[in-house]
Amino acid sequence: MSSSKTILAINAGSSSLKVSIFSAESDTPNQLAEIEISGLSSPPATLKYSRGDEKIKGKELENVKNQGDALDYILDHLMNDDGLPQLKDKEDIEFACHRVVHGGDYSQAQVINRDTYHHIERLSDLAPLHNASALSLIKSLHETLPSTINLAFFDTTFHSTIPRHISTYPVPQSSKSNNLRKYGFHGLSYASILRSTSSFLKKPPSSTSLIALHLGSGASACAIRNGKSLDTSMGLTPLSGLPGATRSGDVDPALVFHMTNSAGDMSASSTKELHITQAEEMLNKKCGWNALTGTTDFGAVIAGEREEDKLAVDILVDRIIGLVGAYFVRLGGEVDALVFAGGIGEKGAELRNKVVDSLRCLGFAIDEGKNGKVGDGVVEDVGSDEARYKVLVCRTDEQAEMARGCLERWDEFKKG
Amino acid sequence: MSSSKTILAINAGSSSLKVSIFSAESDTPNQLAEIEISGLSSPPATLKYSRGDEKIKGKELENVKNQGDALDYILDHLMNDDGLPQLKDKEDIEFACHRVVHGGDYSQAQVINRDTYHHIERLSDLAPLHNASALSLIKSLHETLPSTINLAFFDTTFHSTIPRHISTYPVPQSSKSNNLRKYGFHGLSYASILRSTSSFLKKPPSSTSLIALHLGSGASACAIRNGKSLDTSMGLTPLSGLPGATRSGDVDPALVFHMTNSAGDMSASSTKELHITQAEEMLNKKCGWNALTGTTDFGAVIAGEREEDKLAVDILVDRIIGLVGAYFVRLGGEVDALVFAGGIGEKGAELRNKVVDSLRCLGFAIDEGKNGKVGDGVVEDVGSDEARYKVLVCRTDEQAEMARGCLERWDEFKKG
Repeated sequence: MSSSKTILAINAGSSSLKVSIFSAESDTPNQLAEIEISGLSSPPATLKYSRGDEKIKGKELENVKNQGDALDYILDHLMNDDGLPQLKDKEDIEFACHRVVHGGDYSQAQVINRDTYHHIERLSDLAPLHNASALSLIKSLHETLPSTINLAFFDTTFHSTIPRHISTYPVPQSSKSNNLRKYGFHGLSYASILRSTSSFLKKPPSSTSLIALHLGSGASACAIRNGKSLDTSMGLTPLSGLPGATRSGDVDPALVFHMTNSAGDMSASSTKELHITQAEEMLNKKCGWNALTGTTDFGAVIAGEREEDKLAVDILVDRIIGLVGAYFVRLGGEVDALVFAGGIGEKGAELRNKVVDSLRCLGFAIDEGKNGKVGDGVVEDVGSDEARYKVLVCRTDEQAEMARGCLERWDEFKKG
Repeated sequence: MSSSKTILAINAGSSSLKVSIFSAESDTPNQLAEIEISGLSSPPATLKYSRGDEKIKGKELENVKNQGDALDYILDHLMNDDGLPQLKDKEDIEFACHRVVHGGDYSQAQVINRDTYHHIERLSDLAPLHNASALSLIKSLHETLPSTINLAFFDTTFHSTIPRHISTYPVPQSSKSNNLRKYGFHGLSYASILRSTSSFLKKPPSSTSLIALHLGSGASACAIRNGKSLDTSMGLTPLSGLPGATRSGDVDPALVFHMTNSAGDMSASSTKELHITQAEEMLNKKCGWNALTGTTDFGAVIAGEREEDKLAVDILVDRIIGLVGAYFVRLGGEVDALVFAGGIGEKGAELRNKVVDSLRCLGFAIDEGKNGKVGDGVVEDVGSDEARYKVLVCRTDEQAEMARGCLERWDEFKKG
């Protein structure tokens, strides 16, 4: 099924590029190394690298200014690392797996060829702010590594099971607007969360039901019923649902027209290919807790003493507990665990405390001791032993999820 | 405190005008008659009138084509009804109470004078589709009945207690956008629901906590904690929250820009005074269950057999139970009752069944017998005796709520 070659799993953020390298020698992904360049939008960019005990952290990179530079640097670094004999030249990379935010109606990962590339390009109209970096990386990688097969893994795929009455917006159902439904995002993360927590709970994924929170600078929630996404808070685009670092989340759909008279005009960031209105740019980039507090760093917000810091935290807690209540009802109370994941979900002990404290009426309770010092496991139990439902913290791994998906369909993908 | 004169309570809908006449002889409003002209936007308009046992229903009116005509017809009808000796000439009408949708930061009802009129006019920019009919009626009434004092009662007032972290949108907090918060609507209805149900439950309003649903062609939900609005589903405008007959309710805030390229352009319905974008008009007037099924009549939708009828019902039920779950958590599970009100809430036994059936995990349960034949009381219990929380149906009365507010502050209002 697999070979001695390697898989790259590539995760392009808005100002970072993260690549994990997996050996393809077994059926489960075996990570050899992980490399990340961050701060692309606020130079100098910095490098983080880990391979076994070998670690580099915070190394500043002078001439790395965009995703393309970062990819070149990363490939060069990997092939010149003597401790990584599995990756010595370009031909060693069998597959490059790319995380693509919007997959439209694709219900599974795709080999990227001319057709699928153009289809994903067209989908970018639904999420212009989100698909662009993956597309440009796919292009660079195809040029740099011509013998590597590129695969697209979509953040929407996990949510293709959402029932129609939950995914449909009550808007005119013209053929165009039939595409205008809830898609949901963070799907690779939710697949990873489901896999890890069901294993932790010693249940098959297909009978595991969760309320999962992926909390990062982009934040969302997902109701998983018997291993399938039943509902999630993001929608047609990643804008709706929870507020993020710079994203408004759900607001009155009329709000943006009262914030500006030019909501529908094209933003200066629009290009010939990608149309972004000023409204979409404003709601995605100028809102969230950054708009209230002046920082995108939620750790600083929750440690802050100012009235606006407290307000921003209270808003996030309020929106999270509202979603948990809604999903609890949609799941009919049949929930194995509430799961915190994502950077803020994993690190934010105080946020977890505040959230779970407001969920006592549903049967969740935290163990402050366990919550205060979460261990190193992929999944850690932070709930009170007396509570009706478990509360878990999960280290989600989108790259491993892609590598696993690649291994599972290796032969099929090899045929192209 | 009061006199032998009468109070008119006037409730202007988008295509109807409803007026209740109250005697001002006691401290509690005593309704003498009620008159309604509906179908103004689909002529011929029809008249409904009731005074004691005297009833008129479905009488077609040839020359009544707008709110102004309807008001003239109604005043004429009332003054010529021999069975209504309390209202013989214009001077008998001491106060005219107007339901005004958007009251901005007004925390209580206002006597309408030049200043307050212009302030309400300016607020109309926040709810251009909603305040206009009340404003034009106030003008007509002032001309027709120069000695009557006009009062404005706002649908937003009841929600002025919503805490800041719930009412704040995470958007830039410029001085303009400080006004851009959740206001909430249907407030006269929720005040009426609180009054009636707390009396039914034999509790003071100030210790009554409810999850109240006002379900009509405009629909919303409200969490009431100890007599005060804690959260409600409508926002800056009545657009957000639950879907309505022609309203989308909550959708991805980016959706409308994918429905049309001219979302931000002014609609053809805009006037020099009132600015309505095409997006706001579309989301308010072209969506909701009408967009899915072709009818605004929810009774026909829930009785319908087509796939799109079932979809529309499932969508409404899903959005309602999600809100109930969210409000249950915000109330910490301290809820006296779930209350159904509004035309659909009062008449829709099957909808109540479906909603409450999905709320069993929270401790709500319906008694199908009682739910199938709701009695004549202002409040009727339709819940199962074994359930943890009560389920009630309440006949909400916005006009009586205004009349009561008028009686309570009679002397103050007389001074102007």
